[in-house]
Amino acid sequence: MSRPTPRLVLVAGATRTAAIDGISAAGASPDLLWHTPAADAEILAYGRPVEAPAVPASPTGCPTPAVVTRGARDVLGFETTVVDAGIDPPTAAPTVDFDVAAGGDIRETTPVPGVEQVFERARDLGSGLPDAEVLIGETIPGGTTTAMGTLRALGEPARVSSSLPANPTGLKRNVVAQGLDASGISAGDLAGDPLGAIEAMGDPVLAAAAGIAAGALETGTGVTLAGGTQMLAVAAVLRHAGVTGPLPVATTTHVADDESADFREAAVALDVHPIVTDPGFAHIEGEGAAGLAGYADGEAKGGVGMGGALALAARAGVLDQVRGRAVDFCGRLLGDREAVPESGSEVSSGGS
Amino acid sequence: MSRPTPRLVLVAGATRTAAIDGISAAGASPDLLWHTPAADAEILAYGRPVEAPAVPASPTGCPTPAVVTRGARDVLGFETTVVDAGIDPPTAAPTVDFDVAAGGDIRETTPVPGVEQVFERARDLGSGLPDAEVLIGETIPGGTTTAMGTLRALGEPARVSSSLPANPTGLKRNVVAQGLDASGISAGDLAGDPLGAIEAMGDPVLAAAAGIAAGALETGTGVTLAGGTQMLAVAAVLRHAGVTGPLPVATTTHVADDESADFREAAVALDVHPIVTDPGFAHIEGEGAAGLAGYADGEAKGGVGMGGALALAARAGVLDQVRGRAVDFCGRLLGDREAVPESGSEVSSGGS
Repeated sequence: MSRPTPRLVLVAGATRTAAIDGISAAGASPDLLWHTPAADAEILAYGRPVEAPAVPASPTGCPTPAVVTRGARDVLGFETTVVDAGIDPPTAAPTVDFDVAAGGDIRETTPVPGVEQVFERARDLGSGLPDAEVLIGETIPGGTTTAMGTLRALGEPARVSSSLPANPTGLKRNVVAQGLDASGISAGDLAGDPLGAIEAMGDPVLAAAAGIAAGALETGTGVTLAGGTQMLAVAAVLRHAGVTGPLPVATTTHVADDESADFREAAVALDVHPIVTDPGFAHIEGEGAAGLAGYADGEAKGGVGMGGALALAARAGVLDQVRGRAVDFCGRLLGDREAVPESGSEVSSGGS
Repeated sequence: MSRPTPRLVLVAGATRTAAIDGISAAGASPDLLWHTPAADAEILAYGRPVEAPAVPASPTGCPTPAVVTRGARDVLGFETTVVDAGIDPPTAAPTVDFDVAAGGDIRETTPVPGVEQVFERARDLGSGLPDAEVLIGETIPGGTTTAMGTLRALGEPARVSSSLPANPTGLKRNVVAQGLDASGISAGDLAGDPLGAIEAMGDPVLAAAAGIAAGALETGTGVTLAGGTQMLAVAAVLRHAGVTGPLPVATTTHVADDESADFREAAVALDVHPIVTDPGFAHIEGEGAAGLAGYADGEAKGGVGMGGALALAARAGVLDQVRGRAVDFCGRLLGDREAVPESGSEVSSGGS
């Protein structure tokens, strides 16, 4: 009963880790940060924010990768399913609600209580999906820090990327170190206990994404993890849960080439196949082009399933059209609705 | 930012009125009735039930109109948004959750408390929709009885259809009379107070559908009510709320020609333009054809946006393809997953 194109499942949620100064939101409008998952979900579902107050954008006006994913959806017509794994405040987009609270700050002992219920609920959904192939993406501000925390707890050395041009790597390391202390563990202590690692150092989106992937794989649905270093954390969770099959991770050149991370090496270490697509935003033109050009300067980089959407576009030979559509979206969205910059904040969790 | 085809908004929910013996569910598996909205939403979102236990079907195996709407979606690629206006038990389909409980039995004093909040929440969503045109459909077992109740409270004489070949009109009239008594009102007492009429005699789906329509119309989005006599009740609510613009209602010949109702006359009385499409199920062939042939014998008739989906298909000249796709779905769904008949029950709210 599946359509010819894969389904994109976007897992959206929040972690209070994002409130740490400099990790994610700082400056004039930190409150807007919390609306990013809701806004991303609405852009994917409706092409623009419906109830969320603004189009997520960086201080320089680089817009959320949701515009690229939505552009690809318009061109390719793939189906999308948004999972609410802790969106707060809520969204006007249709979601499969996992009835889970936003994750706590990882400097708490147990930032993700009930992680097993989230994973099992997600596994049920994944095993019920009718598709031959699904892509799984995420939107969660602060998500690269919780990804780093989870990787550390599992003893995986992978470094993580950032949506900021200058990755606040030192700060993230400190936060993760404090988180390990608060949970009374050392790096690697939770190897082989991936849900324990998420419970102590992760966020609910990681649990939901891993569960959906696990359920889908168990029932013969191919899974592509659509994202950057956060999706490597999901891959690590799956590997530590004993999942051994193929696990491609589709991201952008901006994530893969981020020298503060080591996407390609980490992919090899986790036995996942990297699919890297260049969005080609360096030389685009049009009203919305200026915003997207920020990607070429190291902003945003990916997220909201953008890497996967671009991989589908490249596979279908329609990358130019998708790029054009994304430029079009940016021009209209940043024109007809004020994009309030979140000073110093992430564009989206994807490259946080 | 809208796509060329309209968006279909499916409002799904429940009313305890459906539990009345003979109205909706009776016999072997009344419990399955409550899963119908969840199953319909899942069929629309995924092409098959994912967590709901069965494909809704009549005793003779006539399947839910969701298979037709989904077939049209596959062929035409229109966007769909499911609104949860009281689905209980929950669904694995993505929904915009209005956070409303299932409606009570209309023989209670106030079966739909909080009707104004539901309407306003729906109006917000409707006014935020980016589309040039939306179709609004419903799935709520027992929905024609609550539609009749609402029409009576408003003083509108329209009769209502049924998904059963023999419309239990006498029973519905008795239930409505008891409901009016319980609410301490007579027919027509709530003319000009449409939310009061829903509160006393309707269901939350009527409030949500009317609110979405009102919000959409206020912001220049064209609205087509996709359904039969329940959508006439929505039209009546809108007219009594002072909405004066065009309000097409798209249904099937099976509803429009139902002699126990008077769809065409009621449409004229409410100044709504009927769009009537013949699904053409009388002479189809294929593995799933037998089930759909039941429509030609007066079962199911419509619902789950089927009338609107068929109107779009007819407009695009792809009715044959949609019919073929629906037959295909039926063959696979009723084959690979046991369709447990709900003895004496409605196929869906649409023609309840």
